Amino acid sequence: MSKKLTKRAEDYSKWYNELVVKADLAENSGVRGCMVIKPYGYAIWEKMQAELDRMFKETGHENAYFPIFIPKSYLSKEASHVEGFAKECAVVTHYRLKTAEDGSIIVDEDAKLEEELIVRPTSETIIWDTYKKWIQSYRDLPLLINQWANVVRWEMRTRLFLRTAEFLWQEGHTAHATESEAIVEAEQMMNIYADFAENFMAMPVIKGVKTASERFAGAIETYCIEALMQDGKALQAGTSHFLGQNFAKAFDVKFATKEGKQEYVWATSWGVSTRLMGALVMTHSDDNGLVLPPKLAPIQVVIIPIYKGLEQLDAIAERVGPLVKELRAKGISVKFDNRDTHKPGFKFNEYELKGVPIRIALGQRDMDNGTFEVARRDTLEKQIVKADEIVEKIEGLLEEIQENIYKKAIDHRANHITEVNSYDEFKVILESKGGFISAHWDGTDETEERIKNETKATIRCIPIDVKEENGSCMITGKPSKNRVLFAKAY
Amino acid sequence: MSKKLTKRAEDYSKWYNELVVKADLAENSGVRGCMVIKPYGYAIWEKMQAELDRMFKETGHENAYFPIFIPKSYLSKEASHVEGFAKECAVVTHYRLKTAEDGSIIVDEDAKLEEELIVRPTSETIIWDTYKKWIQSYRDLPLLINQWANVVRWEMRTRLFLRTAEFLWQEGHTAHATESEAIVEAEQMMNIYADFAENFMAMPVIKGVKTASERFAGAIETYCIEALMQDGKALQAGTSHFLGQNFAKAFDVKFATKEGKQEYVWATSWGVSTRLMGALVMTHSDDNGLVLPPKLAPIQVVIIPIYKGLEQLDAIAERVGPLVKELRAKGISVKFDNRDTHKPGFKFNEYELKGVPIRIALGQRDMDNGTFEVARRDTLEKQIVKADEIVEKIEGLLEEIQENIYKKAIDHRANHITEVNSYDEFKVILESKGGFISAHWDGTDETEERIKNETKATIRCIPIDVKEENGSCMITGKPSKNRVLFAKAY
Repeated sequence: MSKKLTKRAEDYSKWYNELVVKADLAENSGVRGCMVIKPYGYAIWEKMQAELDRMFKETGHENAYFPIFIPKSYLSKEASHVEGFAKECAVVTHYRLKTAEDGSIIVDEDAKLEEELIVRPTSETIIWDTYKKWIQSYRDLPLLINQWANVVRWEMRTRLFLRTAEFLWQEGHTAHATESEAIVEAEQMMNIYADFAENFMAMPVIKGVKTASERFAGAIETYCIEALMQDGKALQAGTSHFLGQNFAKAFDVKFATKEGKQEYVWATSWGVSTRLMGALVMTHSDDNGLVLPPKLAPIQVVIIPIYKGLEQLDAIAERVGPLVKELRAKGISVKFDNRDTHKPGFKFNEYELKGVPIRIALGQRDMDNGTFEVARRDTLEKQIVKADEIVEKIEGLLEEIQENIYKKAIDHRANHITEVNSYDEFKVILESKGGFISAHWDGTDETEERIKNETKATIRCIPIDVKEENGSCMITGKPSKNRVLFAKAY
Repeated sequence: MSKKLTKRAEDYSKWYNELVVKADLAENSGVRGCMVIKPYGYAIWEKMQAELDRMFKETGHENAYFPIFIPKSYLSKEASHVEGFAKECAVVTHYRLKTAEDGSIIVDEDAKLEEELIVRPTSETIIWDTYKKWIQSYRDLPLLINQWANVVRWEMRTRLFLRTAEFLWQEGHTAHATESEAIVEAEQMMNIYADFAENFMAMPVIKGVKTASERFAGAIETYCIEALMQDGKALQAGTSHFLGQNFAKAFDVKFATKEGKQEYVWATSWGVSTRLMGALVMTHSDDNGLVLPPKLAPIQVVIIPIYKGLEQLDAIAERVGPLVKELRAKGISVKFDNRDTHKPGFKFNEYELKGVPIRIALGQRDMDNGTFEVARRDTLEKQIVKADEIVEKIEGLLEEIQENIYKKAIDHRANHITEVNSYDEFKVILESKGGFISAHWDGTDETEERIKNETKATIRCIPIDVKEENGSCMITGKPSKNRVLFAKAY
């Protein structure tokens, strides 16, 4: 709370970095690229986890846990998979330290592993090595498993939540008897992610599929949800992969069909990570700090007493007690901040910075009048509410805020999807306005690569609901049957 | 379900290993010493986590997350700490793989880390490095933080749940302004662990403190809860450490007191792990399989239809539907196993093996008579219950089973605490009967070490409620003021 946040218009990137730290979400650790998720940030992540976990279980998935280490030989079994991850692998080579003659602590060279272990960047290989033991017959299918875990990808340039060497995520890994069932699963999980993003994070997303060059290493098709941040850059918020039989073949996982034939199993995998925390921050927050959707806010309502002397504080506390009780009984999380070590102004700033959706203040005048001062975080509007209307008011406001910030994000996105028909126009829009740019593309890796190299924009996705429209590629003029969405991305 | 379990009396250790795998709790992975926790085992762990997490939060703790990697220099800062963990550290030395000329995947020697990273065996050092930034004043204290995480200790001989290279746990790390407050915290957490063990796991435990040689590396005092397994061996089920100012001094964490003086912070840390899963199995299970306490059973009631033809199954399903609904409304987890691919006998064995507390079966005769056959897992007793009494019966039985298995475990322990007054007697009891042996000890490391070397028994703890009793050490004859508890242990 030392000094004011940098303004978004001044330096969006700096604003983000400062906000994440000042709002007590996360900070850098002494370990390169690894973050510490602070209690307030972790409380939001726990709320995200709880909702996602419920959604996974409601669709028949079970949780399990697989080893953090992956033998190098496992990772190497699926060629495109290892190619995709080799450059960012943390490698364990020894299993013991010892004290050197000079008293310093060193690696014990006698304790070298026969085979190096990779700290999992993702778990397809160790999981499919396990599934080989679990799947013999069609009766063992489908196998619908999810894991909540930490993973490590050695990134060179890191940013809190958005790109860190270690991050937390969930990874679903499913096995199916048929291709179509696996595709239905991959699509279902994309839809669950979109549902979560829109209805809990209040973050609109576009559902789509990735181009070949942007696919997960080892996938046949990658489904994704793409969100748009306030600075006009896109953010991939979740992916769901149809893996075909690639991993089943790499790990020789076959099943006996009802007819007694041996066939390879079909697979999917899907994940979202603590990256969603970054997306949440960048979708709603403003120059005063975080703006949290009520459904994911660890504190939904904060009550701040304004008083002189402990006698007044006691009187306020007496009036606040029953209100806190009533709100909690309705499942609303309330904090009564009666700390005598900080002034009301300090507290106002603190909860504004932390994005608490509703702030209630009450001082002597409110005590006399039987009222509360209610301020909403999203619009910063204040109003005076009578005591007998306060509970209903809060309930209504929480819903209203959730809807309002979603609508605001929808409007922002609607204003930032631009159709263009020439590469010149594309470049102008990209630099002036940003956002998603809808354009025709000839479907080749070469053209995609050229655009990326020249403009830093990538194809975010081919939307699921894309319209057929005959056109020609803005670069090569070759025929194209639909537009795709480009953007600069996080 | 291939063949029968080994009997406990035949080979307890083999019985345990078989049961963990056959009941779908966990299995060994392709990575040395690392286990896969299977969905059924993980569901029990999730129930444990939920209760513990609730207890931690109710006592003011918040969750956070710290990096999985610990720089070697951090680990080295507290001398006794690194000495305790150096021999079992997984060390990351490189951050990239590459393709060799022969096409194989190898470690890229150009990507060697300047400083090696240790995969956390415990997080005191990385956390206290962080606390240095978080703590300036008495206003920042106490800091009450918990982390749910995976940790790695490179064990040479591993056993599922009991001792694995990677395991899941929670680790609490708290910081306090005074010594007495930190001691109260450490004792509180021991009491919470005991409460959880007894009231949820139905596992009686003895609360105590460790001797100096058995303390956590870096602790001033280690509080513990010790349980007794059916084979007469003890199992340390949880520990809570008073760390004094050791880590504050190692990481230079001071705070300004109210009076403006700079003082080192006082610390605790405390943890329980997936080891509790092993304890749960070994406390209650029998030669037919798992016996789970109802409060931690993922499935509390299973309903198995006995039918000929799908028409009968439909009729049964129609009668079962409302019962399932009613039980679920009461928060009881029920599974109706209507799989047509397996026979009732197979299902009976499966749920017995998996320790489901109550099995309800119903066939044509029950349909005709308006009854259910109810079997309880702990005693294997069956009874016929009328439809209008079934819900109340189930509710009562779940409580009864929880109490009964706890009582059984209490009785077993009571029969296995033996007071001895000579070393000869000690050795006879240890070999014949096992269990806890209560004896006088002179308080020296040497005597403790000698007993350990000669008998494999260790001092499990000095019980919190130990009585003062003048006696003499069974080995040296030196004076002793209280008995301590010895046992062979897992």
